[in-house]
Amino acid sequence: VPFADLPTPCLLVDLDRLEANAAAMRARALRLGVRLRPHVKTHKVPEIARIQHGGVAGPITVSTLAEARAFAAVGFVDLCWALPLPAGRAAEAVALAEAVDRLVLLVDSPEAVGWIAAAARPGGRRIPVALKVDCGGRRAGVDPAGDEGPAIAARIAEDPRLEWAGLLTHAGHAYACRGPAEVEAVACQERGALLALAARLGRAGLPCPDLSLGSTPTLVHAEDLAGVTEVRPGNYVFFDAFQAAVGSCRIEDCALSVLCTVIGRHPARAALVLDAGALALSLDPGPRHVDPGCGFGAVFDTALAERCGALRIAALSQEHARVEVRGGLPPGAFPLGTRLRIVPNHACLAAACHPVHHAVRAGRVVARWVPVRGW
Amino acid sequence: VPFADLPTPCLLVDLDRLEANAAAMRARALRLGVRLRPHVKTHKVPEIARIQHGGVAGPITVSTLAEARAFAAVGFVDLCWALPLPAGRAAEAVALAEAVDRLVLLVDSPEAVGWIAAAARPGGRRIPVALKVDCGGRRAGVDPAGDEGPAIAARIAEDPRLEWAGLLTHAGHAYACRGPAEVEAVACQERGALLALAARLGRAGLPCPDLSLGSTPTLVHAEDLAGVTEVRPGNYVFFDAFQAAVGSCRIEDCALSVLCTVIGRHPARAALVLDAGALALSLDPGPRHVDPGCGFGAVFDTALAERCGALRIAALSQEHARVEVRGGLPPGAFPLGTRLRIVPNHACLAAACHPVHHAVRAGRVVARWVPVRGW
Repeated sequence: VPFADLPTPCLLVDLDRLEANAAAMRARALRLGVRLRPHVKTHKVPEIARIQHGGVAGPITVSTLAEARAFAAVGFVDLCWALPLPAGRAAEAVALAEAVDRLVLLVDSPEAVGWIAAAARPGGRRIPVALKVDCGGRRAGVDPAGDEGPAIAARIAEDPRLEWAGLLTHAGHAYACRGPAEVEAVACQERGALLALAARLGRAGLPCPDLSLGSTPTLVHAEDLAGVTEVRPGNYVFFDAFQAAVGSCRIEDCALSVLCTVIGRHPARAALVLDAGALALSLDPGPRHVDPGCGFGAVFDTALAERCGALRIAALSQEHARVEVRGGLPPGAFPLGTRLRIVPNHACLAAACHPVHHAVRAGRVVARWVPVRGW
Repeated sequence: VPFADLPTPCLLVDLDRLEANAAAMRARALRLGVRLRPHVKTHKVPEIARIQHGGVAGPITVSTLAEARAFAAVGFVDLCWALPLPAGRAAEAVALAEAVDRLVLLVDSPEAVGWIAAAARPGGRRIPVALKVDCGGRRAGVDPAGDEGPAIAARIAEDPRLEWAGLLTHAGHAYACRGPAEVEAVACQERGALLALAARLGRAGLPCPDLSLGSTPTLVHAEDLAGVTEVRPGNYVFFDAFQAAVGSCRIEDCALSVLCTVIGRHPARAALVLDAGALALSLDPGPRHVDPGCGFGAVFDTALAERCGALRIAALSQEHARVEVRGGLPPGAFPLGTRLRIVPNHACLAAACHPVHHAVRAGRVVARWVPVRGW
């Protein structure tokens, strides 16, 4: 079916761009000598994860147990749940870890080590546990220079029910950067935090089997990852208006868009209304730190070939986008019924809004993918 | 099952509060002599719509055709789709209008009138069409003082395939108000826009069968709706932190909350991490115009009895909330595993994040409801 016939709003995945983005990151990981464990939270679609691995069910990172279960059910058996383990989910997580080849659990507290150990079956398989390190994002993770990290690592390593898996970090603060130079500084910090704590642990007799890092901004610019064993980028497979604004990609690399329709035309106030609101795009405010006027996504024609530079998505309500037309709305421009494609500010959040992904190539829908949902 | 045992994050609906909110609005509509046609976009759950009508499948407003179809399938046969009709959806909308008792479609352009007429079966049922009026929100709708409204209304009334249904407006700009006094001014504008255009149409020989308005802020303060026939509030059934901040309700009236768990504790930076991120709460920034420090929701204990006033949700990533603890994190406070309930900034968007609503009463889950999704 031609995608132009789909009811709007709906989610389109440009397969050519997706495959190119996937291949580029695979080549980069190969060149840098690191394992690629893409974060599937960006799409939550097993078919996309296979494309990321060139056709196989390779290692993945998940953000929820729901993702872990659904991907495991279709053959993804090498997993990492990259969230500090919630107290109430230890039994479920351990049960899944026993059912797959490998599910690494993440901790940043001694308490969480205890929950996992308590949930493990006596005499059962050792559960791999990694330590989350804060490399400057100040969200989750232990201070790489503090005493807590070595204490937790030792506790993991000493417990016969657990397998010491190493260190993991994520430079979430890369998203506050204004361009590649700043991102490179954050990337350096990200790797530095891992290497510093790993060196301290090594001197204490506790080498790290894995050193895992990754955010899309820090990885697309990475030239040297010596010492690192694994990377976990997620967004790169789609990219989005935010990544383009901070220099992670060109806007024409963006593979995800929301197809919508002009449902209102108001020349007197130089405005359009589109049928893609907060439930189709998410309310992510976008890269306002580099482009205060960015609006809620970048508007394109249906071919994603030409950006509608005069259109700014000024506001979203649940099912409406209110678009300002710079310079006024000329007679005949953007008539009611016009289809447009919006490259979202934040692909991960926009994708999660939709019950189905339409994979498109050469103007046609070639596959319909159903993402995992919930927790 | 006690809701405290549910895996987190998850969505809880406090049934006592929900029923009280529903009953209060039903009583208000009765007292004011208007038909209550609640907007079900807030929850998208048929069971909740029945509670809003005291147990019956009464008139409802929908935001999507998906809602219209799903609610119609379980007995809601008096519907209004309150979105300017998108060009490509006319055939589907007309087909549904022929299958239910009544589905009012909305237009704010002569083109849309033509699409509906063209989709109607010759000799079939007349399709009811209402005209959307802009009462100051400057999103959708015709200018009530302009010439376009009467021209479109006449076109609807003249077409034998269509039924002239009247006027509809929505004071979306009420959400920018700072309190009841400002809301009352907007409410006056909302009703005034309808009455003014209705008077002009009446003088031109075209009386309006229905005059429909409504937003939760303007309706909770309404004392006089003379001339109005119908109201369409949605949010009131849940309320939320935004509505409490602008004076639509007390915070203790809020019926919707997200149950979450403390998964990170960082005393050195006076911070907690919760397992409810942007995919559990939405990224709605909340009532920053009245409370610049509001954060991404109001945090409560599990009973929703005590507000955790020191906790401010400073940032959301996909599956994490980063919480600042005013005055520092005392030893032993909010230990890992602590359950909290977050009253979201915007109930409609937060509810849409979740695959299931857990209806709770006296601490127990008494029903599980599945909301409609998609378009």
